[in-house]
Amino acid sequence: MYELIKRLYPICCSITGEGTRETLNIIKEYIPIEIHEVPTGTKVFDWSIPKEWNITDAYVKNSKGERIVDFKKSNVHILNYSVPIKKKLPLAELKKHLFTLPEAPDQVPYLTSYYEENWGFCITHRQYEELKEDEYEVCVDSSLKDGHLTYGELLIEGALEDEVLFTTYICHPSLCNDNLSGIALQTLLASALKDKQLNYSYRFLFIPETIGAITWLSLNENKVPKIKHGLVATCVGDAGKSTYKKTKRGNAIIDKVVEKVLKDSGAEYNIVDFCPFGSDERQFSSLGFNLDVGSLTRTPCNAFAEYHTLADNLDFVAEEYLQDSLDKYLDAVFILEHDGKYLNLNPKCEPNLGKRGLCGLIGGRKGPDHLKEAIFWVLSDSDGNKSLLDTSISSGMPFKIIKQAADLLCETNLLKRVV
Amino acid sequence: MYELIKRLYPICCSITGEGTRETLNIIKEYIPIEIHEVPTGTKVFDWSIPKEWNITDAYVKNSKGERIVDFKKSNVHILNYSVPIKKKLPLAELKKHLFTLPEAPDQVPYLTSYYEENWGFCITHRQYEELKEDEYEVCVDSSLKDGHLTYGELLIEGALEDEVLFTTYICHPSLCNDNLSGIALQTLLASALKDKQLNYSYRFLFIPETIGAITWLSLNENKVPKIKHGLVATCVGDAGKSTYKKTKRGNAIIDKVVEKVLKDSGAEYNIVDFCPFGSDERQFSSLGFNLDVGSLTRTPCNAFAEYHTLADNLDFVAEEYLQDSLDKYLDAVFILEHDGKYLNLNPKCEPNLGKRGLCGLIGGRKGPDHLKEAIFWVLSDSDGNKSLLDTSISSGMPFKIIKQAADLLCETNLLKRVV
Amino acid sequence: MYELIKRLYPICCSITGEGTRETLNIIKEYIPIEIHEVPTGTKVFDWSIPKEWNITDAYVKNSKGERIVDFKKSNVHILNYSVPIKKKLPLAELKKHLFTLPEAPDQVPYLTSYYEENWGFCITHRQYEELKEDEYEVCVDSSLKDGHLTYGELLIEGALEDEVLFTTYICHPSLCNDNLSGIALQTLLASALKDKQLNYSYRFLFIPETIGAITWLSLNENKVPKIKHGLVATCVGDAGKSTYKKTKRGNAIIDKVVEKVLKDSGAEYNIVDFCPFGSDERQFSSLGFNLDVGSLTRTPCNAFAEYHTLADNLDFVAEEYLQDSLDKYLDAVFILEHDGKYLNLNPKCEPNLGKRGLCGLIGGRKGPDHLKEAIFWVLSDSDGNKSLLDTSISSGMPFKIIKQAADLLCETNLLKRVV
Repeated sequence: MYELIKRLYPICCSITGEGTRETLNIIKEYIPIEIHEVPTGTKVFDWSIPKEWNITDAYVKNSKGERIVDFKKSNVHILNYSVPIKKKLPLAELKKHLFTLPEAPDQVPYLTSYYEENWGFCITHRQYEELKEDEYEVCVDSSLKDGHLTYGELLIEGALEDEVLFTTYICHPSLCNDNLSGIALQTLLASALKDKQLNYSYRFLFIPETIGAITWLSLNENKVPKIKHGLVATCVGDAGKSTYKKTKRGNAIIDKVVEKVLKDSGAEYNIVDFCPFGSDERQFSSLGFNLDVGSLTRTPCNAFAEYHTLADNLDFVAEEYLQDSLDKYLDAVFILEHDGKYLNLNPKCEPNLGKRGLCGLIGGRKGPDHLKEAIFWVLSDSDGNKSLLDTSISSGMPFKIIKQAADLLCETNLLKRVV
Repeated sequence: MYELIKRLYPICCSITGEGTRETLNIIKEYIPIEIHEVPTGTKVFDWSIPKEWNITDAYVKNSKGERIVDFKKSNVHILNYSVPIKKKLPLAELKKHLFTLPEAPDQVPYLTSYYEENWGFCITHRQYEELKEDEYEVCVDSSLKDGHLTYGELLIEGALEDEVLFTTYICHPSLCNDNLSGIALQTLLASALKDKQLNYSYRFLFIPETIGAITWLSLNENKVPKIKHGLVATCVGDAGKSTYKKTKRGNAIIDKVVEKVLKDSGAEYNIVDFCPFGSDERQFSSLGFNLDVGSLTRTPCNAFAEYHTLADNLDFVAEEYLQDSLDKYLDAVFILEHDGKYLNLNPKCEPNLGKRGLCGLIGGRKGPDHLKEAIFWVLSDSDGNKSLLDTSISSGMPFKIIKQAADLLCETNLLKRVV
Repeated sequence: MYELIKRLYPICCSITGEGTRETLNIIKEYIPIEIHEVPTGTKVFDWSIPKEWNITDAYVKNSKGERIVDFKKSNVHILNYSVPIKKKLPLAELKKHLFTLPEAPDQVPYLTSYYEENWGFCITHRQYEELKEDEYEVCVDSSLKDGHLTYGELLIEGALEDEVLFTTYICHPSLCNDNLSGIALQTLLASALKDKQLNYSYRFLFIPETIGAITWLSLNENKVPKIKHGLVATCVGDAGKSTYKKTKRGNAIIDKVVEKVLKDSGAEYNIVDFCPFGSDERQFSSLGFNLDVGSLTRTPCNAFAEYHTLADNLDFVAEEYLQDSLDKYLDAVFILEHDGKYLNLNPKCEPNLGKRGLCGLIGGRKGPDHLKEAIFWVLSDSDGNKSLLDTSISSGMPFKIIKQAADLLCETNLLKRVV
């Protein structure tokens, strides 16, 4: 995943434009996404698709002709969606178009102005304060023209029409944790699932944040009822512990699944309640859709200082954290695929496990026989209404051992799956 | 409020008699209460109105003729409702009629004997222990005659027949926190509301404790169903933090309202569960009525040492605490008046707030834009079933900001009130 | 109870055999249990009654003819249910039949092999490690023949057909806390109840663990629906604090009863959730029966080091702890017998308790009048749906005071029992 992030890092993305196409084409080398183009002006609910933005160069030069701010050094220096400009101007006027983080004077912020025509540059506050009176030349060689909003989509079909949605956003340029990490994780997750025999169908979206989610929902309302569970993949590559932001409902199946995955992982984690800001969970959870979409991240975006700055770079993420996140996504898929409701076929008293070879026969002192414990839990709970996930939660045992116990009991005709 | 307490402090009140009339007439200078007189002997549920008690003088003299206990120094010295007596008696017999607090030997207790004919004096335990053998003269110049129980009532009519009840008791003589503070708060609260355009109707009762509440309920059973929420105002003037005693139901709207007021205040507070003792909440909450009546006090009566002693005097309460309590009562009224259920008119994805001028347009780094957060919460919750109070509780945001967000959304036709 | 334990301690019990008969005959000296014999081979659900096991002697001798392991010194030295054997064998082969506790090298474990034919001896790990190469003689003078499984049963009939089940197991030889303590407690509990006028009927089972519970349930399915509440009595004699393992349902009446008993006791205690292992609660709670059976013990069996070792001896239990446990069982019976739902006959406001002599009449300062508080709680709660147990829980007052208050209110016609 880290290699993929390195490939995507130089591309200047935004909510529209060549950057998103370039990104999606690289993803397509890994997984067979379909790339959709939605024309400027298309009405999507309360919004319409904006003009397509592209940029080739941008700088601020001092009177000596030195580039003191240079888009070529980092995409983050340009106020994203800046309109084209080329002119000379004094310091006072320039300053109206310079954006900084006074509280973090060595950081370059990442900022956007999608829906109000503006231009500007993002620099450190230290540089801002050292600027001298001079005649500056600013140049933004960008274009804002009728074009398209571009997004990628992949549906991996399983036995069921019921879908699990994974969605991530592709609009942030040159920010590694937020959100090249999400793109990389979803790409490798889809790659891992695409040739498997699956129960659920899995839909992957690679879209611009907010306007992309609104666009997809607007153009695909007929598909919405199939989506039973969803996760927004973002900020999955930093060293922090995993954080799960619950669905709006707060007790959806996906909530129970992810909380169980985190608990079974043995590592520390955080669970936070839903709030109607954050990423695209807020579109999928809006009252008109009410989808059960949570978000499994590492450090939440409002809790790391590098968020939306130039410091969210290739040093801020690492393969081991990406892999740990991916493992948890795969574990969630494992539970979704293997959960079910079972019926105990020998409900009156415990069955004679010994005569079926299901446990050691020297009774007496207690030992840590987890599988035997799991067998008792499954027998005790399997009334046809409690799922294996429920049993794994109430027993505190790992889902995988509970599932193994259920399989053994099915093999010996003590249990059968009913749902 | 403190000035009103100072005026009421010298009056010798009880559950009947001229003291209550005098108190109610002073209240009437501030707000247009109606004064009701209920004759002795009137049956009120399991009780009947007792004889009216009045007192002009009372003392204990030693053989030198010195008043060693003197009602004229404080109303608290007389066992409230003492029958008339005038006789000479030795120390041993006198002691049967002296009441003290051995565990607080410098305090004079306040005691009553409403329903058993008795007479007595309340003194410090220190004085009690220093009394010498002597021939004492006791005099209680009181009368217990057929008369009336007197109470005051004010209904401020709003748009709705639904009522909010505020009730306080007027029967404790010369005790400032318990309960001249409650009288003063209710008087000023009624004064603040009486000329406003209100949604609810507000009923204020100024009654003797227990027998007064029983009397009002007995004579006004037809009005009971209109009462939707209620608070008993008592002990609201001391320096302690606010305490809310919940309704019997424990999750009534008034419980949620007052808990939110206390949380939004930013100050420390206590919430305690209902118990069937305390003040008149126990009559209004009795099984036959089951009204949702809580009690918002400061230090609860069983938690301050001055309770029911001469030390609950003018030094024990202060205007700043009275004002803080009144503010919280007014905030509760604010929520009751402005709560409502709303419907999001743009339920599919978030609306474009920018094109409606509802938020700044430079996106990027998070800032503390509370109003924008409130707007998202209201949009996310307003399904017609959750109230603004619910949203303010689940979001943790102040009710007033949530209300402001709802108003802005209504103005831009993104929201409408449904209940 | 300690004397009874001392009498039972020498007997070599197992799930079948003369030891259980001897034990039951001693119990029968105290209470009129019926002794049942179920023949070998009888099908009981998924199981069948095993052959009857009896043993007269067993030892390991070294080549000098010294008994280095001797069943006559303790029943625990023999692997319970060992098949007969008599032969000479070298150390290496002997070791395959020696069982120890390496992690507790001075303890002799208690072990069984009911359902796999085997023989063996239980010794300290220290002795095991010191054994030298030698020719050993092993002798197990046991028999495994068609016979019976034996259990004891007593039904004390009350006014109702509804039953409370107390069950304990008799199959562990020479282990005092687990479970001669349970046998002694149940014997004395039945003795205390057998001549009383009771509301519920009380069924006492003295059975071999697991196979005995399965046997009783299999042969008495028609009686199961009468059992409304149950407790497994085991490990009730050690110095640890009381522990209650909840029923599978977790909020059954017996759960509320025992939790209240423990709370009212004033002593520390533990409450643990149900799990489908432990003792016979797992048979009674199996899905086919779902009986509300909890278990009130002292230290749980998996939490004391002496569990299933020779160290669970006569020094490990004491009369004072047995008595404390018995008192709690009796308190649970008290609540079950006296709980009920009541109706307040004076629901509108509080009744005039004074005129009925139900409380002191000098009002004023608060005192600790618990009975008066209990009276108010009962009046406040008695809507015909809340039980006295519910009221005692929500008020935090001892059940016995709540019951006393209800009795006083019934005597004065302010309350009547409805259920």
